[in-house]
This record gives sequence, C-alpha cells and structure tokens, in this order.
Amino acid sequence: MYNSSLMKTGVALVIGLCISAPLAIPQETAALDGFTAESSRAERAWEAKFRAIPDPALMRAYMERLSARPHHVGSAYDRNNAEWLLAKLREWGLDAQIESFDVLFPTPKERLIEMVAPHRFVARIEEPTVPGDPTSAQHDEQLPTYNAYSIDGDVTGPLVYVNHGVPDDYETLERQGVSVKGAIVIARYGGSWRGVKPKVAAEHGAIGCLIYSDPRDDGFAPGLPFPAGAFRPKNGVQRGSVLDMPVYPGDPLTPGVGATPDAKRLPISEAVTLTKIPVMPISYADAQPLLEALEGRTVPAAWRGGLPITYRFGPGPAKVHLKLKFNWDQKPLYDVIARIPGALYPDEWILRGNHHDAWVNGAEDPVSGTISVMEEARAMAALLHEGWKPKRTIVFCVWDGEEPGLLGSTEWVETHADELARKAAVYINSDSNGRGYLGMEGSHSLEHFINGVARDIDDPESGVTVWKRAQAERIAGDDRAASPADRAEARKGRDLRIGALGSGSDFSAFLDHVGVASLNLGFGGEDDGGIYHSIYDDFYWYTHFSDTRFVYGRALAQTAGTAVMRLAGADLLPFEFHNLADTVHRYVDEVKKLASDKREQTVERNQQIDDGVFAALEDPQLTTVLPAKETVPPFLNFAPLENGLAALERAAHDFDHAASHAAADGGAALAHAQLKDVNDRLTLVERTFLSGAGLPNRPWFQHQIYAPGLYTGYGVKTLPAVREAIEQKQWKLADEQVVRVGKVLEDAAAAIAAAAKALKTATE
Amino acid sequence: MYNSSLMKTGVALVIGLCISAPLAIPQETAALDGFTAESSRAERAWEAKFRAIPDPALMRAYMERLSARPHHVGSAYDRNNAEWLLAKLREWGLDAQIESFDVLFPTPKERLIEMVAPHRFVARIEEPTVPGDPTSAQHDEQLPTYNAYSIDGDVTGPLVYVNHGVPDDYETLERQGVSVKGAIVIARYGGSWRGVKPKVAAEHGAIGCLIYSDPRDDGFAPGLPFPAGAFRPKNGVQRGSVLDMPVYPGDPLTPGVGATPDAKRLPISEAVTLTKIPVMPISYADAQPLLEALEGRTVPAAWRGGLPITYRFGPGPAKVHLKLKFNWDQKPLYDVIARIPGALYPDEWILRGNHHDAWVNGAEDPVSGTISVMEEARAMAALLHEGWKPKRTIVFCVWDGEEPGLLGSTEWVETHADELARKAAVYINSDSNGRGYLGMEGSHSLEHFINGVARDIDDPESGVTVWKRAQAERIAGDDRAASPADRAEARKGRDLRIGALGSGSDFSAFLDHVGVASLNLGFGGEDDGGIYHSIYDDFYWYTHFSDTRFVYGRALAQTAGTAVMRLAGADLLPFEFHNLADTVHRYVDEVKKLASDKREQTVERNQQIDDGVFAALEDPQLTTVLPAKETVPPFLNFAPLENGLAALERAAHDFDHAASHAAADGGAALAHAQLKDVNDRLTLVERTFLSGAGLPNRPWFQHQIYAPGLYTGYGVKTLPAVREAIEQKQWKLADEQVVRVGKVLEDAAAAIAAAAKALKTATE
Repeated sequence: MYNSSLMKTGVALVIGLCISAPLAIPQETAALDGFTAESSRAERAWEAKFRAIPDPALMRAYMERLSARPHHVGSAYDRNNAEWLLAKLREWGLDAQIESFDVLFPTPKERLIEMVAPHRFVARIEEPTVPGDPTSAQHDEQLPTYNAYSIDGDVTGPLVYVNHGVPDDYETLERQGVSVKGAIVIARYGGSWRGVKPKVAAEHGAIGCLIYSDPRDDGFAPGLPFPAGAFRPKNGVQRGSVLDMPVYPGDPLTPGVGATPDAKRLPISEAVTLTKIPVMPISYADAQPLLEALEGRTVPAAWRGGLPITYRFGPGPAKVHLKLKFNWDQKPLYDVIARIPGALYPDEWILRGNHHDAWVNGAEDPVSGTISVMEEARAMAALLHEGWKPKRTIVFCVWDGEEPGLLGSTEWVETHADELARKAAVYINSDSNGRGYLGMEGSHSLEHFINGVARDIDDPESGVTVWKRAQAERIAGDDRAASPADRAEARKGRDLRIGALGSGSDFSAFLDHVGVASLNLGFGGEDDGGIYHSIYDDFYWYTHFSDTRFVYGRALAQTAGTAVMRLAGADLLPFEFHNLADTVHRYVDEVKKLASDKREQTVERNQQIDDGVFAALEDPQLTTVLPAKETVPPFLNFAPLENGLAALERAAHDFDHAASHAAADGGAALAHAQLKDVNDRLTLVERTFLSGAGLPNRPWFQHQIYAPGLYTGYGVKTLPAVREAIEQKQWKLADEQVVRVGKVLEDAAAAIAAAAKALKTATE
Repeated sequence: MYNSSLMKTGVALVIGLCISAPLAIPQETAALDGFTAESSRAERAWEAKFRAIPDPALMRAYMERLSARPHHVGSAYDRNNAEWLLAKLREWGLDAQIESFDVLFPTPKERLIEMVAPHRFVARIEEPTVPGDPTSAQHDEQLPTYNAYSIDGDVTGPLVYVNHGVPDDYETLERQGVSVKGAIVIARYGGSWRGVKPKVAAEHGAIGCLIYSDPRDDGFAPGLPFPAGAFRPKNGVQRGSVLDMPVYPGDPLTPGVGATPDAKRLPISEAVTLTKIPVMPISYADAQPLLEALEGRTVPAAWRGGLPITYRFGPGPAKVHLKLKFNWDQKPLYDVIARIPGALYPDEWILRGNHHDAWVNGAEDPVSGTISVMEEARAMAALLHEGWKPKRTIVFCVWDGEEPGLLGSTEWVETHADELARKAAVYINSDSNGRGYLGMEGSHSLEHFINGVARDIDDPESGVTVWKRAQAERIAGDDRAASPADRAEARKGRDLRIGALGSGSDFSAFLDHVGVASLNLGFGGEDDGGIYHSIYDDFYWYTHFSDTRFVYGRALAQTAGTAVMRLAGADLLPFEFHNLADTVHRYVDEVKKLASDKREQTVERNQQIDDGVFAALEDPQLTTVLPAKETVPPFLNFAPLENGLAALERAAHDFDHAASHAAADGGAALAHAQLKDVNDRLTLVERTFLSGAGLPNRPWFQHQIYAPGLYTGYGVKTLPAVREAIEQKQWKLADEQVVRVGKVLEDAAAAIAAAAKALKTATE
C-alpha cells in the first residue's frame, strides 16, 4: 500500500514518470515509475517471488490436457475445458465464475467444391490423419474445414485468380480487362485478413470465393511440411472466421449489447456481418487442379505462389460449383472470470485475458497463451497466501468463442460496458505464444511502462533480458521492417516503439468499443510453422516444433504477470503521455503525407495519360485496359488535427512537468484521496479517444486513434476515420473527420492537462 | 561530301552539338548535329530512302535459312552460313571477305552427373525433341548440353546449394556454418554471369559446380513452358561459356594477339581463363532430385526457387559424382567482313557488327540480330547504286565464335589493333533482338547522338517513335528500376540516359581493349521466354513467340543503319561530352558513396558485435556462426578523381562553347583539312580512357570508365579499378587507382580541350 508516513520522514518520493532517456541509475536500484522508493522495493520483492513460480512442467501438462480433444465453440470439450479452468482457479483459492452467453455459430451441414469444366475434379476438403500424431485422428470431433459466417450458397461460375483479393488486386485485374462479375474467385491467404477477401470479391460482383493456403507462404517453401517439419502439409487447411469484424465483432445478432438470454436479437437476415457470398477455405492440394485449369494471361511476379504451375488470371475455362449449407444454431459460450479484489482501489481494475476456445485442438492457438495466464493466476494466488495485497482489483479472463469472432470477450465487454467504462484501467491480452522475441503492441500511453517491464524479464535462450533481445531484433533482425531511424532509436536504448493494435484478438472490445488502454503481448519469430487453424495445431506439433521446453511460456507468464502486478501495485498509475503524443505526431504526419502522395500520384498519372505514356506502352498482343483520368484530390485542411496534436503535446509536457515536480518535492502532500483522484483521471484518458458516433459507417468502433482497417481486417489503421477516407478518396468525408478527430485530440489533451493540474495541485 | 563552297556563300553553318535541352525547332527542319543545314537535308533524304528498304519478309527468309541447322563454332553449318553471308554481301555488290582464325574450342567427349547417395539418380542431360518443332529433332548435329571451357574432371562430393553462387551468397553460407570445401555446389542461373559461379565456387574450395535453370526465373513461373508457351521446358538447358572473360575474352591460348596461324600459343595448361573446377549446366528436371535430397537448414526466402520442394543448404546427404571429358581441339572461325570505303575520310571507320554463330540453331541468339545487319548492308548497297557516298568508311562485321567467348571479334580486333587504334571512330553492336522497347547502351560521348537517332525511328506497334516509347517505358514501365529523379528527367524530354557497357557481346574488344567508342542496340521487353542457349531457340519458337512479323527486326535495321549512315555522313563527328562528363560525375559520386557506405557499415557492424546484438539473436536450435569484427576502412583521398572530373567538366564545356561558336559565325573557315583534324581528335578521345597497364590483374581490360565486373561477368562496373578495389576492401589499391584514374580523366579532358581549341581556332 501507499506509505505516506514514510514520505513524511523526508525520504524523497521518486515517482518516476515520463523517463524516455536511458536510465542513468542501475535498473535494480531505481524506483519503479509510479512508486516511491520504498513501495518500489516492496513491489520488486513480490515480483521476484512471482517470477520464480511459473513452471514449464505444469504448463506442458495444462497444454496436454486442454488440447487433448477438439474444443471449438459448442463442443463438449470446450465446456469441459472451461469447467476444468474454473476448477483450477478455485482450487488455487481464487474467486472464479463462468459467465455464459448464447451466440449464433454456424457449422457445416453440406460442403461441396467441384470443378465442372474443362474436366471434373472434386475437392477433397478433408485433412488426413498424420501417423504418429494421435489427436490428428479425432475426426469425429473435429470441425470440418470451413469459414465461419459464410452464408449458404449454391453457385456455379468461371474461376478467376485474384491473388490476395485486396482492392489493389482488383485494380490490376481491371487493367488486364478481367472482370469477376458472375465468377467464383480463388484468393490466396495473406495480404489481408481472410474476411476481407469475400467482402471485396462480392463488392466486385463475384458470386463465390475460395481461399487457399499457398505453399509459398506457409507450406513447403518456408520449410518442410508437417510431420517432417513445422509447415503446412498439402491437405492442411486454414479454417477461420469471415465475419465482417471490421464492422462489428461479437455475436452477429446482438451488435453493441451482450448476448444474454434476454437480449434482443436481430433476425439472421439482418445480420450485416455475415458474408454476402459463400466462401470456403481449401488446401493447396485442392487448389492446384483448379489453378492449373485457368487460362488467360500470366499473372505478375508478385502474384505467383509456390505451386509448380504457371499462375494465370482466368477467367475460366475452369468452372467451379460451390455448394455450402450450414446449421445456423445458437451455441453457448463459457467465459471463465476470476477476480483478486484490490486492497486500496478495488474499483480500479487491471484485466488480463487469453481465450481458451480453438478451431480444433489448438495447442498453439490459443492454448500456448492460455497456459501462461493460468500460471500467472496460480502464482498470484500463491502470493496472496504469502500476504501480497495488490492495491487494485485484478481480473483474469479466459475467453470462449474468440475464434469465430471475438465472441466471448465482446459479449462480456458489451454486457459490462458501463462498469468497465468506470473502472477498467488496463487490459492485457495474449493469444498464441512461441519462441523468439517479445512482441509488444498496444496503447502508447503504456509504451514506456511495458518497456520498463520488458527490461526486467530474462530471456530463456540468450542470457540477456527480453527487452535487450527485442532491441537486438530491431537493430539487426531479418524480420522487422524498421526504418533506419527506428533502428538508430533502438540502439540508443530509448523505449522500443510498440505497434498499434488492429484486431484479431480479445483486446478489440476493450480498446475499440469502451476505450480501455490495452496491451497485447507474446513471443515469436523463432517458431514459424504452417498449422494455423488446422487439425495439426496440436500437442504433438507444439512439443516438436515450437516452444518445446515451455520456457517462453514461462517468459510470457513472467512478463504479463509482472505487468499486471506492477499496474495493480503502483501508487500512481504509470501512464506516460510523451510517447503517446510523439506517436500521434507520427500518425498525423503519415495522413498528411498520404493525402499529399495521393494528390501527386493522381497528377502524375493524369499527366502520363495526357502524354500518351500508357498508349505508347500498349502491347498489341495483350488485352489491357488503359487507365482513365481521375479528379485531382483537393488540398485538405489538416489544421484541426494539427491544433489537436499541439494541445496533446502541451498536455503531455504539462503532465511530465507535474510528475517531476511531484518527485522533486517529495510529494509529501499526496494523500490517498488525492492519489485516487489523479489515478481516476488517468484511467479515463483513454476513454477520451472515443467518439460516440464511432467511425464512419461502423459506429461500434469508437476509438479515433486505433482501429482494424475496413479493408485490412486485423491490420491496424491509425487515425482511422481520416486515413480511410483519404485511402478511399472520400475527400469531403476526410475534411469532416479531420475536424472530428482534431476535437477528440483536444478532449484528450484537456483530460491529460486536468490530470497534470490535479497532480500539481496535490503536490503544491 | 562536305560543301565548303556553300558556306562561303554565307549560308549559316549550323553544326548543332551538345543540345541537351528539348529541341525548340521541329525535329524535321533542325540541322542534324555535325551537319550543315544543307548537308543535313541531304543526309535526311538518304536516311529516309534507307529506312524504306529493310524488308521483314526477307529477314524472315534469312532467319529460316541461317537457323535451319545447328551452327556452332566448328560445325559444318557454321562455315556454310559464313559462306552464304559472304555470297549475299557480294551479290549486293559489297567488297566482302572472310577472315579466319584458329581457336581452342572444347566440345564434350564424356558427360556424367549422377547422385550416388542417399539414393542413385542419373541426370538425363538431354533436351528432347518437341513434336511440331522440326529443328528440335536435329540431335546428330546439336552440341550436347555443356559449359564451354570447363576443365576435365572426375569428382565426387557432397552437394551444397549456393543460390546464385556470388560472393554474398557464400557470406550467407558462412553465417550458417556451411562450407563448400570438398563439395560440389549447385547454383541457379541468374544474379551473375554464369562463368562467375564456378570461379567463386573454386575460390571457396568447391571441387565441382552444377548450374541449373530454376523455373522461377525462366521456366513455368513467368509463363507456360515451350511449346505451349515461350518459356523453358523442364528438360531445357542453358548452354554457355564459362571462360573467365572478365580476365580476357577471346582464344584462351592467344591473349592480346590475334589467333592467326603463326600466333604464339600458350600450352593449354597455362590458359588462365579455363575454369579451375569442372562445371555443367542442367535442366530443372535434372536439378529437382538433387535439390530434394539436400538436408540442413531451409534457405532464406530470396534463395528459394520455383520447384515444389523445400530448398535447403545441404551439405548432403546428397552426394554427386561429376565426370567430364572434353575434346580440346582447335576450331576455325569465319568472320565475314564487308567494307564500304569512305569518299572523304576513308581512314575514319564506322563499324557495325553482330555475330552469326550460335549454341544450337540460335534463331533468337544471334540470328534475330544478324538479319538486321544483313538488311542494313543490302539497303546501303542499294543506296550506293543510287549515288549515295558516305564520307567515312563503313565496315560490316558478321562475327563467328561469339558464344564461346567473343572469339571472332576479339581475335579480329587484336589482329587489327594498330589500324583500329588509328582509324576506328565508332563500333555499333547488336545481338539478339525482340519485341518491345529500344535498349541503348554504350559510350556516353554518343548518348546525345543515339538519342537523336531514336527520335527519328517509328515504332512498329505504337505509332510513336522508338524514342518516345522508350521514354514511356522509363516513366511508367514495370521492368526498369529507374530512380524517381531519372523518371523526372525522362519526362522532361532530356536525352534518355544510356546504360554503360559491361560485356557479353562483341563490343568488348573494341571498347575495353582498344578504346573505340561503342554502342549496343536492340529491342526487347515484350519478348520474354526461356529458350536461351537451348535447342528450342529456333525458327519455330521465334516465329511463334517473339517478333513474329519481323517488324522489330526492321526497326533495329532502321535504327542502327540510320546511326551508321549519320556517323559516316557527318561533317563533324557528332560526339558530345556534356552527357559524358555528367555521367562520369555520377560514377565518381557513386564510388565515393560506396567507400563511405562500406565504412559506415563496418562501424555499425562492429558496434553491433560489441553490443552483443548478434549473440542476443542467436537461436540455440540452429547452427550459426557469429560474425567477426572487421578493420574499419580508412578514409580515401578522392581528390585526384575529383580534380580529373573537374577538368573533364571544364573541357566538355569548352567543347560545347567552341561548337556553338562554330555554329554562330557560320564556320566559314572550316576547310576540309581543319575538319579532318578535329574529327581525328574526336575519334581519339575514347582512346584516352585507356591505361596501358589495364585494370589491376587484368591488363587486357584497358578502359578506365567501363569494364565487366570481375565478380559480375557481363554486369558493368564503372570506374572499375576504383570501384572493385573498394568492393574487395583493398584500400591501398583503391587509393592508388584513384590517382591513376584521376590521371586518365585529366588526359581525356586535355584531349577534349585540344579538340575544342582546334575547332575554335578553325572558326576564328
């Protein structure tokens, strides 16, 4: 607890905030941000005890148990797992419950994909048992391969290959004179979230959509196929949701409200998040005969996959018959929720979650993350027995129904929205976990905080901290596309920049709908494979090819658990706004550049058309369509955004100043009530980024800084209202949204300034 | 002829030189550079007549005849073709001869590639007949698949995949702990000239080398395989020379001198341009079982090819036995040479060439270019009958023995080196030709000139000039990697920058050895295919997939022929030095940046090693070798190069000024003798770029601005002595070469300044 008597004895209150420069004082002896020197020492001692507890052997045992049978939404083993998780949490002494919801969850009744011309081929659409991998044989309990929330359909049409099936790909098709009207498209996984593919296909007039896993991406090209290696075997299929989550996630029948028994439900026909055309995922073994039967021009190099064929656009002569029928049933969800009440601030909540449902056995996705949350809960339960008393309430959430559409978390958040809006300070999510580098994404008001946590966690492989290893990866790793400037920053020991959150896991409702500052954590980069959402994502695969010693499972528990404890134990919530303002500055620069680039590109393109450049390049042996001139985009007025940003930067500076002041004068006057006032204000800062009206045409998404892209799905769009309006060439809308988002930045600035003032007043 | 009486009547002499800005005057009425208004009108009239003559139907007939049977060096049909070419030239009334040389040309006696572990597989190493393609069945006359100038060998060793087999690839292997010592490497075509692959492999200790055509590059990935499409079928093989041409091309036994009967020949054992290890080219059908039998770590994404396998490094367990024996015979070459004597300056020569020998039937390579040269010769012969009198001597050269190592052109140039050094003004080369855009490469003193020619030639497909189409391609085409600045330049109508010449065709001896300003011309970009150096490069393929109507064959004849006529007819040779100086300025900037980048990279890398970045990134499940620290490169003194460049820029400006002056005052005083003096000086400018000592360790290559790269082969290295010393981290050598090349630039500047002075004096 916060020790005011100590301060009165003249010991300096070092509430370190906004420290972006490398620490001059050795990490161990410096006070943690938001703590006094004394409370920091106590916190560090508890954290050290905590980090010694998570046990790889237990995590392995949990995984074996949780992934022993298929456990998708509605399955017997899904409920069985939830009950086992509940029993464990209670066994450890925690106050745990299951909260249940009833949601629309379609499962296949009839699936047929056949090529009817130029010759007949019937797709296998089944994943065979792999000898030696016991759970791959559990066919009776496995969900068949399908895309959840595809509509029913029975369509026949010529086939067209559309690469990733994103809007740019259709521009390429248009230049080649290829239309998908009345056609069935075949898209490869990648380049966008899968649900975007049937959406864009339908917008262009397609009547059906196949999505296949190309071996170039996660099959034999990156590595040997399972079971010889970690990658996708030829009949492996990526199941997955195609719910239009960028419009709203969760139960399609209860947008914005919890799917409780008494909730008002839409008729299925009015659920706008179902697809407009039938869609099915297939393996590369099934895709090859279809692609091979396409004629037309050879595709550009970037469209080529790894199959030993000449990839061509079509349309046809391949003609495909796609027939899909689903059981449109309601299924129960079982969210497992455990609470550790806060000793000092019970109404300030730190939430920690990971889902437990899977598409099939789901050892990696999600059990590799679930087992870390469970070990965190067990360890904290043990600390409670030793006398540990977190100041704030900690809520563990083990979600059901994440896979079909973030169902369990969304319905829970919608049900408890009012309470969360008042109480939730931070939500920390994880999902699949593997070997490698710590990935950190989330609200930038937590960027400095989570960097501090990462600097305290040992990497199990390298002998340095997970922060140091992540830093090394930013500087010299192969996988990140960091700019040279970012590399230089990373080398200086500055906080590593964290990614912004799009969607794809259970943080979405917290961050996007109710404005709870969120983080998503996980290790990866040395755990590549190709079993995602297939029957081969199982205990055998995970214990042969991923974090086989479960040491990164332990590292995740240590990282996320330390973050939870530190947030729950801080005297002053360790939000920091300098990094936030700096990041928003980057976003503002990006959208300005985007608008200016769009303008320049249009001017240049029109000039090229006027100059006859495209006409001169025409190859008479090929059918191409000359591009048409476009209206040159107007200059946009970015002043409202820039004014909002300036206010945010000033407020961030004020808060820095107030925090330094608090630290410098020993903060003698900071009594409990004053701290609570400042903490409450800090909790609500993220809420100010919400706009009641939400994003254009998708009011569920209220956050004005982060959102999943309407045409990227999981991929984040920052300042989404402005950025997407520009991308979609809606100039009037862009001008309006600049004003709206500028106002949101002003509101956030005002909230931060008020917190700064409260802190300053308290320490005067 | 040069009409001095006309000038005396007061008609302004408009010798337009150095016009880099777009022409304000319509092209048709402006005087050509180096001509008076009157001589320009006459020239244009003859050129127009000329361009009406080349006949696609005849070109098709020539191709059918020349490619009817295999015609490699030493074959009966090679000689037969030479005699037919000679007869044609004589039939048209030209003074033509065959010049013969005797060169070392090995052909296969024994070829065996077998995998002996983990299972046995014997490579087919044969290209099958394609039904419908008659000449593909001429197996008795076809050269077997092989790489010419591989040494004999009988080696067995583990196999290692080395990607393109360039030095960078071996660095990657080293980081993975993979050595090729005692191994046989398998490299894919691409990334360097093929001869570099066995050279670098041997330098790293390999005992044998296989080179295969990956289907990602010219097989089924870019398009349907032959005969369904233009691309390489699975058993198609790229033959080709592996002679170490970057050391010296031509007969390996007679470096620097013509391979005449009485030439002193080295014993074969002393011929340094033969490979150090045996090497064989193979098809992707033969490569697949070998690559599939490799184990070890999966290769990086950039190393992956198009075969449906997981590409891995090895070494082994695949073990390969490679056995090669060759007939080390002398074979005759038949260069066909025709001369049109100059009426006014018989000792100023304009040379025009293309080779006639092929690896097999060679319809594309080289006959598609040969037939243009023949139509140029026929057309000029016709003009001579009508009274056309070129001022300078025109020499048509139809080379033999280009494929094995630029033999025919090199031996001819070496034989006539002294005369060429005195008389040769310009050499214009072509080789294979196809559909698409005009490619222009060569000496930058001809950049402005050849742009002027290209502005006068109609493109057969687009209805614009070939210059305009090439410009469009620079602005908006897919294939060029032009910088945005280059694009902007191209849009302004400035001269299109021409590429520098490396090697790979018959210009090499002219430019690199005796310093004759050279150009290489050809159309391409809409003629992709995968039959290069296989039996499928034949009349059937060409007339189905390339310039099927021979209209680009005609366009090449029109372009090169116009260039030859204009050069042969100009009053003042139309060299221009502003573009040259500007280009050399770019090269100097590049080598300075290269040195600075190397320095920065080393400092950065050493810092990363000191900081433990690589150690932190180690994956304990993989074998990797940590990089070692390197000595930081010293700062180099570039002042001599910069002083030389400054002198060159001043001289170019002086020449511009003198030329303007000559144009402005009517040039009344420019009599024949004075013109001849200036022309002779201009002819010799390119010679000043030679340095008697040649490039470090390869004295045959004397040009100090352009050379093929020692480790790129065909790929050009500009300012090669300096650039390669820096690339190879030979800092002392780099410092020395900067001084040497700076001196060469000073000498060139002095020669240009002297020409400027002569021109100025003549017009005062």
